[in-house]
Amino acid sequence: MTASDPLVLFMPSGKRGNFPVGTTVLDAARQLGVYVESVCGGRATCGRCQIEVQEGHFAKHKITSSNDHISPRGAKEERYDRVKGLPERRRLSCSATIEGDLVVDVPQDTVINTQTIRKAASDRLIERNPAVQLCYVEVDEPDMHKPLGDLDRLKVMLEKDWGWTDLLVSQHLMPEVQKILRKGDWGVTAAIHRDLETSRPTMIALWPGLKNEAYGIACDIGSTTIAIHLVSLLSGRVVASSGTSNPQIRFGEDLMSRVSYVMMNPDGREAMTVAVRQAINELITKVCAEGNVDRNDILDSVFVANPIMHHLFLGIDPTELGQAPFALAVSGAVHSWASEIDLDINHGARVYILPCIAGHVGADAAGATLSEGPYRQDKMMLLVDVGTNAEIVLGNRQRVVAASSPTGPAFEGAEISSGQRAAPGAIERVRIDPETLEPTFRVIGSDKWSDEDGFAQSIGAIGVTGICGSAIIEVVAEMYLAGIISEDGVVDGAMGERSARILPNGRTFSYLLHDGTPRITVTQNDIRAIQLAKSALYAGVKLLMEKQGVTQVDTISFAGAFGSFIDPKYAMVLGLIPDCDLSEVKAVGNAAGTGALMALLNRDHRREIEATVQRIEKIETALEPKFQEHFVHAMALPNKVDLFPKLAEQVKLPPRKVLADAASDGGGGRRRGREGRRGRD
Amino acid sequence: MTASDPLVLFMPSGKRGNFPVGTTVLDAARQLGVYVESVCGGRATCGRCQIEVQEGHFAKHKITSSNDHISPRGAKEERYDRVKGLPERRRLSCSATIEGDLVVDVPQDTVINTQTIRKAASDRLIERNPAVQLCYVEVDEPDMHKPLGDLDRLKVMLEKDWGWTDLLVSQHLMPEVQKILRKGDWGVTAAIHRDLETSRPTMIALWPGLKNEAYGIACDIGSTTIAIHLVSLLSGRVVASSGTSNPQIRFGEDLMSRVSYVMMNPDGREAMTVAVRQAINELITKVCAEGNVDRNDILDSVFVANPIMHHLFLGIDPTELGQAPFALAVSGAVHSWASEIDLDINHGARVYILPCIAGHVGADAAGATLSEGPYRQDKMMLLVDVGTNAEIVLGNRQRVVAASSPTGPAFEGAEISSGQRAAPGAIERVRIDPETLEPTFRVIGSDKWSDEDGFAQSIGAIGVTGICGSAIIEVVAEMYLAGIISEDGVVDGAMGERSARILPNGRTFSYLLHDGTPRITVTQNDIRAIQLAKSALYAGVKLLMEKQGVTQVDTISFAGAFGSFIDPKYAMVLGLIPDCDLSEVKAVGNAAGTGALMALLNRDHRREIEATVQRIEKIETALEPKFQEHFVHAMALPNKVDLFPKLAEQVKLPPRKVLADAASDGGGGRRRGREGRRGRD
Repeated sequence: MTASDPLVLFMPSGKRGNFPVGTTVLDAARQLGVYVESVCGGRATCGRCQIEVQEGHFAKHKITSSNDHISPRGAKEERYDRVKGLPERRRLSCSATIEGDLVVDVPQDTVINTQTIRKAASDRLIERNPAVQLCYVEVDEPDMHKPLGDLDRLKVMLEKDWGWTDLLVSQHLMPEVQKILRKGDWGVTAAIHRDLETSRPTMIALWPGLKNEAYGIACDIGSTTIAIHLVSLLSGRVVASSGTSNPQIRFGEDLMSRVSYVMMNPDGREAMTVAVRQAINELITKVCAEGNVDRNDILDSVFVANPIMHHLFLGIDPTELGQAPFALAVSGAVHSWASEIDLDINHGARVYILPCIAGHVGADAAGATLSEGPYRQDKMMLLVDVGTNAEIVLGNRQRVVAASSPTGPAFEGAEISSGQRAAPGAIERVRIDPETLEPTFRVIGSDKWSDEDGFAQSIGAIGVTGICGSAIIEVVAEMYLAGIISEDGVVDGAMGERSARILPNGRTFSYLLHDGTPRITVTQNDIRAIQLAKSALYAGVKLLMEKQGVTQVDTISFAGAFGSFIDPKYAMVLGLIPDCDLSEVKAVGNAAGTGALMALLNRDHRREIEATVQRIEKIETALEPKFQEHFVHAMALPNKVDLFPKLAEQVKLPPRKVLADAASDGGGGRRRGREGRRGRD
Repeated sequence: MTASDPLVLFMPSGKRGNFPVGTTVLDAARQLGVYVESVCGGRATCGRCQIEVQEGHFAKHKITSSNDHISPRGAKEERYDRVKGLPERRRLSCSATIEGDLVVDVPQDTVINTQTIRKAASDRLIERNPAVQLCYVEVDEPDMHKPLGDLDRLKVMLEKDWGWTDLLVSQHLMPEVQKILRKGDWGVTAAIHRDLETSRPTMIALWPGLKNEAYGIACDIGSTTIAIHLVSLLSGRVVASSGTSNPQIRFGEDLMSRVSYVMMNPDGREAMTVAVRQAINELITKVCAEGNVDRNDILDSVFVANPIMHHLFLGIDPTELGQAPFALAVSGAVHSWASEIDLDINHGARVYILPCIAGHVGADAAGATLSEGPYRQDKMMLLVDVGTNAEIVLGNRQRVVAASSPTGPAFEGAEISSGQRAAPGAIERVRIDPETLEPTFRVIGSDKWSDEDGFAQSIGAIGVTGICGSAIIEVVAEMYLAGIISEDGVVDGAMGERSARILPNGRTFSYLLHDGTPRITVTQNDIRAIQLAKSALYAGVKLLMEKQGVTQVDTISFAGAFGSFIDPKYAMVLGLIPDCDLSEVKAVGNAAGTGALMALLNRDHRREIEATVQRIEKIETALEPKFQEHFVHAMALPNKVDLFPKLAEQVKLPPRKVLADAASDGGGGRRRGREGRRGRD
């Protein structure tokens, strides 16, 4: 290519180069490293390599692009259009040649089998470079003069047409090769897997004729919920998503009780491994039905999980994770075969599991880190994934540190007198009038506030059954903002003079949130539980901020289900997260699952997170002498020593008001319970 | 290393180099590429790295070697001697350092666990470079500050101490790693498999502490017999060998009938695959018991087989091999896992199968080629493996050609009126007095000739039951030498005047070999069957000689059981093999199995045979127009056109004597039966 040759610019990648007239657009893309899918190898039959010419003068790029600068539709494209339909402005890049300067758009959503695509693509555009590629070849028929085996001649063509040298072949295909070749009349599509550049490529599946679709799954195995995406590896589209409860719950509600179950029951590990794999297989059945996909067309899979789920999924005894030094059996990324871990997808399908960061900071945290990418930006980003164990990552392009903190299950509604899981009937939003101390609230299943007309009818038979995690944060924060509780978290019995909702409860006081059946109150013990949980989280964050030498974070990503429902303002009022511009606090949903999706669709993201995890500095909070001090300071609302100036600009924080109580002992009491909580999610 | 440093010469390899004083002998060996085993990694605990200093002045090498030129035994060697015993002149090369010029002998038979070694080493010295290596490492204990997983820290040490980078780990080990590390108190032995340099090394097994033995099996799957060697991968010693009948015989006596069985029975392929794998597992049980070896210590395995056995063993339907164009499903070398083909050895053990040369020239022929190495020498070597299909390889360093020829089962005693398998009671040697035409013979089970005193007693109740393959060759050749049959193979009825053993038999005549129960005769049909078989073989050889442009071969290797029992002289008298100096005709036994053994002990031999097979030119006899002509000429004894001058120097051949018979029609008749015989062994 010389400067006098036509200039071609590919969008959205922005890669550009000069190419001689007559070069196919696909060849040009390949030479520039622009990923354009092609299964048929330039035969204009798969339709995967579609592009569009952008017409006009692009001053910024100094290119005048026109459909006159690309060869007219030839016979092959006309045939494809007749058989499968080619939208008017679309071209097949394997047939269309460069005749002049071009701006070429590579659509990321080329849909071939429309009937199988139900869902819109994920809102995030993930550039594709999957570990599995489909390659159609036409193989020479057997010849007695050159007695190379059928498989060997297939390998010759895969090298000749697609450049796959040193190809390994999955053993299970050997008995099938001859039948498939003859069924396809010597035209077959091979699925080639290569993840690491240092590994030899492997043929993992083979079909007669042109196979024009392949799928993958991205799965987040949480202790409570398992979530899965079914994705087209050829278009990047999410075809179906689903979730289910982790059936291991029957062995133990939280992670530590599951570890105990393994320690107490000889077959406990095996039972839990079988349970989680079975649940995943059932989810696969579900998403395949929804997406109208044959499970044998699933060729790759990526998993994230916390360390204990990670181990149980792999059939590894998690006992070591239940006690110091919390040794992971394996921390690096795991490459395996679906058949090795009993996944009921294509027999040759591969499995990739993201690396774990530390004994309590798992592959799920790695997935969230990949998704949010603190290491990709200059801002100091705090990434928090709150469960019964909070995983905390703090950093920027220069340096990333990570820790876990044993928040306990209070944020999920456990240990709270009226707490419950997020389900219809659960209070999810709370406001308290600072004058009258009267509450209003909303419950899951209704979109009305409790003081709106028709609220009672809208909740109907469900009733008001309890408080879910997000509402616990809100009610405690609102009680604090309304002056019902002090900075130290003590319910002020004197307020009983102003409101009948302040009720004596032994030596302490409670706040009556809803006087129904059941009667929903917030007790002093409930507030203590929230204080303990948020102190643990904040102390962990504070340690990481000290490691980074910062007193302020620039942006906060709240991952996980809890993060999606919590109101950042109240989280900050409680001092759960450090002071930050509220517009910079974002709920990012299942970031771990998004990370898995990225690793599924682009193997470069696997290398990226592997390298990042090696760079991340792991802080073991239990070993840090200052954790205790930060913990005690964090018991106060929002904090005994840290100021929240940015929050104060947007929320009127009450003046300091200290009441006599054993609150300052909370840190020590917490400390004793620490080891027991370790390893919970 | 400089020329002024001490000079060290390693024997038997002859590699030499200068090394600074103080270099360990093991390091010196490694630097020169001399394979010295070491499992413990220089800790002087495994004892595998023993060497001996050769004392004296070696004028040829200009070295004066002495035990004064090596460091005296240190504390580590003394400890090893106390604990395990170190023979007086032996040294541990990991501890002994170079202090002056040395001639170092690397013994190939270092025996550590004497109780497990029963057999003498194979008579062939195979330089070792196995695909599996044992590596002892001591792993750092877990550290909360550096939360690398247990497996990951193990990998770090395998890289640091042994140089294994980019190590893959067999999935089944992941659940075991933590237990093994703790059981070994952080000292473990890993088995690392690397066959191809382009493949990443893989950890396939792991033991607590120092594991000081590993085994492999080399197996030849014949259609009639399966033979196996159990070998120490660390010393190269054959620990036990065994053989068994191929249980597939119950599905069909010869290969073609087994292919038919597969074609006729839906579960036929599966049943035969199960049968052969089961037989191999039983053989493994047998050799393990004999060698006192735990089958879980078998980590590598190498197989050779004819194409149909090769396919059935791998679970591949052999139907395509039963009809033109005789397409192999896979011809290249197969790399697999024992668990994939149901071998009951270590779960992580590997499988290597030698490449097939062509549709009728299998991995067994490749094994025999590797063993005999025509391509390694200047002499024109003919390698013949005779079964019901004869595999023929002809060549030298410049060029190698190969073919198979459908000899049919006559050489194995089938199609012969009194034929039987080689078993007690079978006549195995025959002489006929050319004057009296009286025979003498020997039977299997007795070492007396039939005219010796006590012959009757020596055979006792066994009796004389039939003629085995080698004796059929002898009796026909002796009949020819005695003038009973003509050059054209016709029994001369006129000889009945000289001997009552010439009996009329319809329109032809027979020779009475033994007048007992049963009555053993050699009929005209028997002779025709032998003529057809030997003509097919010779015609194949002749074609290859033409391809090579030679009229003479320099040396002949007779492989296989038949080759071991046949007397080369009689084979040549019959014209089964071309004229050659009789001293250059060697029976080489199970050369295919020896080739498997070589590939097991040295992965370089795998590359060697893979490259050789690619170079070998395959001749499809069925497609060669001259085959027919050679076949017809070869019907005569020894041949109608070819002279046997070297044979004539040692054996008095009878003058030409032609009798009227349909013999010259034999070729055509044979031709019709050809396709049906294809694919037999």
